[in-house]
Amino acid sequence: MLMDSTTYNETRPALNDVRAALARISPFVRRTPVLVSPELDEQTGVTVSFKCENLQYVGAFKARGACNAIYALDKATAYRGVVTHSSGNHAAAVARAARLRDIPVTVVMPDNARPNKIAAVRRFGVEPVLCAPTAAAREAATMDIVAHTNATVVHPYDDPLTIAGQGTVALELTQQAEPLDAILVPVGGGGLLAGTLIVIKSLWPQTKVIAAEPARADDAYRSWKAGRVQDVLHTDTCADGLRTPLGQHTFPIIRSLVDDILLVSEEAIVRATRQLLEQARLVVEPSAAVPWAALTDHVSRFRGKRVGIILSGGNLDFDHLPWS
Amino acid sequence: MLMDSTTYNETRPALNDVRAALARISPFVRRTPVLVSPELDEQTGVTVSFKCENLQYVGAFKARGACNAIYALDKATAYRGVVTHSSGNHAAAVARAARLRDIPVTVVMPDNARPNKIAAVRRFGVEPVLCAPTAAAREAATMDIVAHTNATVVHPYDDPLTIAGQGTVALELTQQAEPLDAILVPVGGGGLLAGTLIVIKSLWPQTKVIAAEPARADDAYRSWKAGRVQDVLHTDTCADGLRTPLGQHTFPIIRSLVDDILLVSEEAIVRATRQLLEQARLVVEPSAAVPWAALTDHVSRFRGKRVGIILSGGNLDFDHLPWS
Repeated sequence: MLMDSTTYNETRPALNDVRAALARISPFVRRTPVLVSPELDEQTGVTVSFKCENLQYVGAFKARGACNAIYALDKATAYRGVVTHSSGNHAAAVARAARLRDIPVTVVMPDNARPNKIAAVRRFGVEPVLCAPTAAAREAATMDIVAHTNATVVHPYDDPLTIAGQGTVALELTQQAEPLDAILVPVGGGGLLAGTLIVIKSLWPQTKVIAAEPARADDAYRSWKAGRVQDVLHTDTCADGLRTPLGQHTFPIIRSLVDDILLVSEEAIVRATRQLLEQARLVVEPSAAVPWAALTDHVSRFRGKRVGIILSGGNLDFDHLPWS
Repeated sequence: MLMDSTTYNETRPALNDVRAALARISPFVRRTPVLVSPELDEQTGVTVSFKCENLQYVGAFKARGACNAIYALDKATAYRGVVTHSSGNHAAAVARAARLRDIPVTVVMPDNARPNKIAAVRRFGVEPVLCAPTAAAREAATMDIVAHTNATVVHPYDDPLTIAGQGTVALELTQQAEPLDAILVPVGGGGLLAGTLIVIKSLWPQTKVIAAEPARADDAYRSWKAGRVQDVLHTDTCADGLRTPLGQHTFPIIRSLVDDILLVSEEAIVRATRQLLEQARLVVEPSAAVPWAALTDHVSRFRGKRVGIILSGGNLDFDHLPWS
């Protein structure tokens, strides 16, 4: 099933790795509920199951990959500590997982990170190391810590353990629902999408797995079309979790297995965020509303179908709502 | 179990009326999920089950009482139509139930009702009749319609059928959870509280049923202490669903069965609304956050206990958040 048509990596995780991840992390993450919205179903004519990772610890699926990567470390390695750089939910996820395992942790964040994301890290007693908001600066800050402590870097997405951890969302969904016609997943760095593809293409081979991406951060779409990883050209989408490029581990999985990638406008993302809040009463951040935006933009394609949507995160900043 | 120690009414609904209500309305309302928040449980030391009527049709438990009252009408009566006056969720609930049964409906609303509550009525194709924001004006407008059409008035809470309908929330909860140590319920007019008491005091006699009320609208507390219905002295609480006085049907049930009534400040209500949104990622309107405010204000009383909270509604106005 899993083709190996690429030279990008030799360590592609498989379904068994996701199963092992779920066994490893299940004491530390929540089996999130699958919720429905009869009112949105009536409006769209689509029967939607929302897999609610917005209700996960730290408010995002990132809790899974971070726990899997950190609990998979052998003891000696773990006690040298972990380090990560992230502007978003992965930062809090690593802080939490390291605190749970009681190992040293450093979280590098850009100094323009959203206040609610910085507060989420501090909630676990971790003071983030702030750096200039450039890839070079955060890379340098991270490598400096590694040089001094020999800590392990926990990558937000481009790591087989992280991908396997994120795949547990879809693995749980296959245990909670009957096979669906399609699953819509947001794509940023591709960890959640790659993990979902590994699981769904093995267990529900008839189910389409469709990625949704902001048109203002369409690097995954362009990479898929081009057959190689493309740079992110803009970083101004309100879906701040989806501004990252695909990685060497995530891209080959996506390239070989994804059924489609749909692009959505900023207006559609804001509208979708608000609709999920006001009509489904589900708290989602803009990145998590991107698949719903794709569904409503392409509703005729999904009408009459049973569709799963992974709500990836619920850390909406209520002091700066995207429409205000 | 249900004492009849009062002269207020002779038609107190009983558990069987709630069972009949659930059978009657179940095609038209949602069996709402019971959700948990591991993060809030960790913070408080209380194990909380949220019965999510914020995820009910029209975003509130009011869908239940309105459906029960309207579907209980005989055909001839029903086809003369129904009328109600409400500034809030009951208005949309009656509009929806009447549309479902396909009978005439008039909804009287004060002209200062919140725009999102007016929009909720219009969503069902019903244009509300706006009147001056006084009890006299809305009573006159309602009676005028009754005089002309012989329509049936669907009271928002002070009616045995409405009370029995609201009791289905607790009846479902007893089917979804093991017996709890306590259940916290908001009290406005008392329909939800009375319905909950009828069910819980019959089926879970060991469970405390505790009402929560804004200190700025403490008429239920004063009525309970005085032994007779007291007027509402202020109408400026942000919990706009809880500004109504108790009724002749709801008060006797509450007086004889409620275990306690806790008062909470406006600050606590706003903080609770925000905490449920940001940390539990549950969309609640301020009225629905009042029980959570009571729990956090009295946390030592509930620590180590299993507590149910009825989240009564999710129609938060995102254009006018209570803390902005």
